[in-house]
Amino acid sequence: MCIQQHKLTKVQHYFSSNFRLGVLGGGQLGRMLLAETQKLDIYTVILDASEDAPCARICNEFHQGDLLDFDTVYNFGKNVDLLTIEIENVNIEALDKLESEGIPVYPKPSNLRIIQNKAQQKKFYQQYNIPTADFMHYAYLEELKHSYQNSIIDFPFVWKSARFGYDGNGVKVVKDYSDLENLPEGECIAEQLVPFKNELAVIVARNKKGQVKTYPVVEMEFHPEANQVEYVICPARIDDTVAKKAREVALKVADAFDFVGLLAVEMFQTQDDQILVNEVAPRTHNSGHYSIEASYTNQFEQHVRSILDLPLGDTASKVAGIMVNLVGAEGHTGPVLYENIEEIMSIDGVTPHLYGKKITKPFRKMGHVTIVHENVDKARAIAQQVKETVKVISK
Amino acid sequence: MCIQQHKLTKVQHYFSSNFRLGVLGGGQLGRMLLAETQKLDIYTVILDASEDAPCARICNEFHQGDLLDFDTVYNFGKNVDLLTIEIENVNIEALDKLESEGIPVYPKPSNLRIIQNKAQQKKFYQQYNIPTADFMHYAYLEELKHSYQNSIIDFPFVWKSARFGYDGNGVKVVKDYSDLENLPEGECIAEQLVPFKNELAVIVARNKKGQVKTYPVVEMEFHPEANQVEYVICPARIDDTVAKKAREVALKVADAFDFVGLLAVEMFQTQDDQILVNEVAPRTHNSGHYSIEASYTNQFEQHVRSILDLPLGDTASKVAGIMVNLVGAEGHTGPVLYENIEEIMSIDGVTPHLYGKKITKPFRKMGHVTIVHENVDKARAIAQQVKETVKVISK
Repeated sequence: MCIQQHKLTKVQHYFSSNFRLGVLGGGQLGRMLLAETQKLDIYTVILDASEDAPCARICNEFHQGDLLDFDTVYNFGKNVDLLTIEIENVNIEALDKLESEGIPVYPKPSNLRIIQNKAQQKKFYQQYNIPTADFMHYAYLEELKHSYQNSIIDFPFVWKSARFGYDGNGVKVVKDYSDLENLPEGECIAEQLVPFKNELAVIVARNKKGQVKTYPVVEMEFHPEANQVEYVICPARIDDTVAKKAREVALKVADAFDFVGLLAVEMFQTQDDQILVNEVAPRTHNSGHYSIEASYTNQFEQHVRSILDLPLGDTASKVAGIMVNLVGAEGHTGPVLYENIEEIMSIDGVTPHLYGKKITKPFRKMGHVTIVHENVDKARAIAQQVKETVKVISK
Repeated sequence: MCIQQHKLTKVQHYFSSNFRLGVLGGGQLGRMLLAETQKLDIYTVILDASEDAPCARICNEFHQGDLLDFDTVYNFGKNVDLLTIEIENVNIEALDKLESEGIPVYPKPSNLRIIQNKAQQKKFYQQYNIPTADFMHYAYLEELKHSYQNSIIDFPFVWKSARFGYDGNGVKVVKDYSDLENLPEGECIAEQLVPFKNELAVIVARNKKGQVKTYPVVEMEFHPEANQVEYVICPARIDDTVAKKAREVALKVADAFDFVGLLAVEMFQTQDDQILVNEVAPRTHNSGHYSIEASYTNQFEQHVRSILDLPLGDTASKVAGIMVNLVGAEGHTGPVLYENIEEIMSIDGVTPHLYGKKITKPFRKMGHVTIVHENVDKARAIAQQVKETVKVISK
């Protein structure tokens, strides 16, 4: 009874109070989250390894430290009322201990442990009958090579590092023996290469009460070399039946995890219109950035609502939205210069977001641009123009 | 030629650079502006008298000091590359000196000087043939009383303090002799009381190049006692011809000032559909808060665009928007508690904005709620529900 009352009091006091929200990670996702916690006046404390992190100077409290170090994460977590993440590569053992000591941690550490390891993720999908491409799991690279030598797998296949893959790192299409020879060591999976029509994503929001909402299906166009998303298009230009199926699959994944927070589910639409789950991210996601301008409730506000067990907001769109990633140009490393931002700002419905990173590197995510329009095809044409106009170079 | 090149270089370097934007005032308008300067990674430095100002902990640099003190404002301005305001009651002499020494100040000090004084503002409208209610100007209250005693003016009329009126302070409808007796001393005007159908507002954005855009006409409903806006409704539910006239009048005011920045023009729609200018605010305005959720370009981003001479954004709306002010309840002074915020968050299209002020007082602006919907009448019904549900009380 006493605990119940305590919780009730807490709910009343998220806003303009002593309540402290802790966030592991202070990159661009944290920065966009801060815009929402500021709007709701929720005191927000950030932990990041870099003193120049995009969140460093604009949060209520900034702590510098290693997200993979047990003591750093544990001590940080002990001083907040609720802990969340903006990057999944964090020390899970510290989160387990914090959770066992009564600090709410969302998403749950048990979910993060599965998602952090791509092999565990794949096994989880199999366990819950969630459609995903076939795969083999290897404890180290030599096992994979034996598997090929013994004709258990054949080219082409997709190699994925089990741990710490991010933005195209840790994923490689292996076409021949020289590709195989050049793979890095370590635990990995070899996945069937699925010919697909589209890469799709659905963001699911789920709160502790179990209230759940899915965002519309988005379509992703990847950069052919860097394996980074170039355009995210909402709504995806696909049949309603396929969109419905994709939302159902995403919902099934979130329910299987008994997830609390935001879960971005990346999927393939195969040639015969099957939906296969590729991978998930347990947080706000690049594929949801369009929502800041296009949706009734953007993904960052929705993340706050879901982890604080507040009512979820409307996930529908006011207008079509397209997101263009601004990544560092090849051949440029050094202090960043955003070229021709003024030019794209002269186009109606175009909003640049610059992440506050001082140094650009080839393919580093330095910002994004959202294009909104009542008509998705017109938005796509403007997005192309934006992409061809802006360059992220060094001074 | 050298100056020209210098300016060109500056334009290239607003974003993620050493460029320093200075803002006089760190209240809620500054706080919402910061969301936009963060989005564009523009280094923003704030001056405010209160160390607990809503902007204090979330800007790049915060300076505490009196906005009406010459030295404080001058010294602050000498250390920024461009100076703007979020409140008009600032030391104009310091701004004059800064401008003469080459620091760009927008809006221009000469405009602020006229706008700061309501009598000067009214004379300006007369000079430029801008429609406004008739008025008399008095150097002190005794003059006004003589004017009444000599039957030059008669009850009812509207008394306005010439200086430092804000949010209903400094404005009073004088209906009888006891009202007259209770007026405060000082320079003032007595204005004809105009029976009107609607109070309307139009925000005009104008950059240095002279590019100009008007936002749609909004309709304002005032609290009968506090003289504070309760609902702002966009679009105003008025005839297109009246809306067109209101936008033309607002544009005429901005052009007369040769204004740079955002100018909020408050107007009366009279019984016979004439438009009379009531007063202007040389900044982002309460009547434009709906734009964060409803417009293609919100007023805070537009302010940044206008003062930095960037292309102006689209002022059209994606959906209808209504704003409800959250003001402190009567009988409550002390640490703020926002009651029933969770309940209104369960309604689609409802977004609370809490300003981060720790102490509530009767009628103090503590936040606002935006309601967006495709249909303005449905939005209005939800706004009523929001208004009746949320209370801003003390703990």
